[in-house]
Amino acid sequence: MKFCTQCANPVSLRIPAGDTLPRHVCEGCGEIHYQNPKIVAGCIPEWEGKILLCRRGIEPRHGLWTIPAGFMENGETIEQAAARETWEEACAKVSIDGLYAVFNIPHVNQVYMIFRAALTVADFAPGIESLETALFEEEDIPWSEMAFPVVVQSLKRYFSDRVEDHFPTFVGTLEPIKR
Amino acid sequence: MKFCTQCANPVSLRIPAGDTLPRHVCEGCGEIHYQNPKIVAGCIPEWEGKILLCRRGIEPRHGLWTIPAGFMENGETIEQAAARETWEEACAKVSIDGLYAVFNIPHVNQVYMIFRAALTVADFAPGIESLETALFEEEDIPWSEMAFPVVVQSLKRYFSDRVEDHFPTFVGTLEPIKR
Repeated sequence: MKFCTQCANPVSLRIPAGDTLPRHVCEGCGEIHYQNPKIVAGCIPEWEGKILLCRRGIEPRHGLWTIPAGFMENGETIEQAAARETWEEACAKVSIDGLYAVFNIPHVNQVYMIFRAALTVADFAPGIESLETALFEEEDIPWSEMAFPVVVQSLKRYFSDRVEDHFPTFVGTLEPIKR
Repeated sequence: MKFCTQCANPVSLRIPAGDTLPRHVCEGCGEIHYQNPKIVAGCIPEWEGKILLCRRGIEPRHGLWTIPAGFMENGETIEQAAARETWEEACAKVSIDGLYAVFNIPHVNQVYMIFRAALTVADFAPGIESLETALFEEEDIPWSEMAFPVVVQSLKRYFSDRVEDHFPTFVGTLEPIKR
């Protein structure tokens, strides 16, 4: 951030009076511009025991598989965001069930919130950001071609919890991948 | 938002190509400026069965009571945000327990995430944004002087769940108050 959204003067990074963290503060009008984590809302859409996955047609992780998920928008609920992303990425209608997994990803300023969900009909197709959509039995999930660790962790836990038919909300934190 | 943070040219509100919602788009460099909901992280801090509340020293709801809660910052987890807010508003150290309540408040673009918590010692005092801090037995909670509906709902459910010692994560949505 270089300029103030209110008056177009330059901003500088400094700790405002009474605050504890550096903020982008306008040198003209004094406006303080806060930046906060974003919510990524998604779901695990199930149909007759199979899970609907999307193969990504955009970066990052182009060509790899994931569940429908994306940034929550102003004016919607997390559940609406998860259903909207499923419609946009997989052209599928879902009924959203309980909140299943919450993942802090502090190094990218994101919080994933993943719901259980059921396809309302077995209709799906690649949305504009997907190359391919398909239903997978547990044993056919392409584990080595998954886009994000958060999705792998959620699905593995999901299949484990499904044995007991008990899906308590899980909260975890993902650390940066060491390369 | 009136000006671009990257180049200081004016922005206009329009739907970018391939998008579905109006965004602030820079007329100079083309940068798209997204705005997303914010997470308010808080906790219900308990000490020997009593709940720690803060009387607000700032607007909105100056003079009314609430639990410690505030905007999650970049680079932290939700649990860290809840503990930090408790330190800032009530000078109290807490151990954060399970995620207890998630409230969509779409008309103000917020998601509340409230954890159960235990004070680690019975030390507390008003932080810079509080007038007063105190421990309350259930029967002494000042229900008619509470700052926010989300806090009233969370505490009522908490006392009800505490009878069974079972605290499943609750997800709800708050509608605007009709005046």
